Amino acid sequence: MAIIKKVKSIELFMGKLSHGSDLLEEITDICRKRNIQLGRVEALGAVQKARLAFYNQQTHEYQFFSINQSLEITKLIGNISLKDGDPVVHAHITLADKTGKAYGGHLASGTVVFACEIILEVFDGPILERKFDKETGLPLWAMSE
Amino acid sequence: MAIIKKVKSIELFMGKLSHGSDLLEEITDICRKRNIQLGRVEALGAVQKARLAFYNQQTHEYQFFSINQSLEITKLIGNISLKDGDPVVHAHITLADKTGKAYGGHLASGTVVFACEIILEVFDGPILERKFDKETGLPLWAMSE
Amino acid sequence: MAIIKKVKSIELFMGKLSHGSDLLEEITDICRKRNIQLGRVEALGAVQKARLAFYNQQTHEYQFFSINQSLEITKLIGNISLKDGDPVVHAHITLADKTGKAYGGHLASGTVVFACEIILEVFDGPILERKFDKETGLPLWAMSE
Repeated sequence: MAIIKKVKSIELFMGKLSHGSDLLEEITDICRKRNIQLGRVEALGAVQKARLAFYNQQTHEYQFFSINQSLEITKLIGNISLKDGDPVVHAHITLADKTGKAYGGHLASGTVVFACEIILEVFDGPILERKFDKETGLPLWAMSE
Repeated sequence: MAIIKKVKSIELFMGKLSHGSDLLEEITDICRKRNIQLGRVEALGAVQKARLAFYNQQTHEYQFFSINQSLEITKLIGNISLKDGDPVVHAHITLADKTGKAYGGHLASGTVVFACEIILEVFDGPILERKFDKETGLPLWAMSE
Repeated sequence: MAIIKKVKSIELFMGKLSHGSDLLEEITDICRKRNIQLGRVEALGAVQKARLAFYNQQTHEYQFFSINQSLEITKLIGNISLKDGDPVVHAHITLADKTGKAYGGHLASGTVVFACEIILEVFDGPILERKFDKETGLPLWAMSE
């Protein structure tokens, strides 16, 4: 059964990431600097190249791959919570090339921003901490009803 | 001309769906149990397999198809309203395979969750009820200015 | 370094666009008529045909292309700000065809709505005005810390 917790939106930010920065690290930096522990982020823009991951549900390992070309970010969506006490951004991304072909996956470090506009919402609520989940092998939120 | 109505965000939830559950039914269940009649939902994660639909604009019929492999959910976005008095979740989804190739469509029952993190926002506002729309053949919101 | 500004959600709308309308222009019209200068929009639905763009990061020019078939909108996400004093909607879109193949890009005029449901959120905050950015060649927000 789904487990959901009530949270509250307490702050909202809009802005842009810097040209040449690492997409995932730049968003994570914002969270670290402002001590954001819970929230959501969305973004659109373009990247110079992308590094993504696909989670292998059988071997329980992320398989990383790169797309070494400029791409539009048609959508980045992510949530912010804690892992080992630090803010962690879990983001998935959809991209498109010059022919309109779409790509996607779990956003990894190594994705380089060309231009990126973000909206970041900070939540107040219960501490959501990622812990190893045996069933999936993933760092999921340790939650109970 | 577009018809839009003012709504108000009154509750916000963050959480996870259960491994092995039906993605669309699990979100719909949350709405039924909490009597959520209006809102929006977004999610990311992974599925064990997907069942999607494409709406044929000529014949006015949904064409269903399955993707029988594990996939990342790069984005699920949906809205919550009413149909025949019951909450209905209208969601579209974008997925990606191990090569990064993206797929998408109208989310149908039969999509099985591997892991899924959701943010669900409850709105207060006018009743939005889906009724048969002759022009498109779709159950659209019966709205007037 | 990222530059972000605090904004505040002040109004929320939910509704539908009209069959046969131009997707980008219809959303822009809503903003013009209601004098919305800052915000975000999301949508799902279907289009009769799409016109998208890919930004060439070398030549600094948008390359436009059309997909002349009916497609599901698996996700539209956009932000609203100002350019030359007028509201401008910057939206990216992900689409899918009858086989589930996904497409995406920068949304351009010429994309025709079959059916489309939107959620539009109005922000109060600093004026975000798009100005020519030399580094990228794009009309980005003129922002300073």
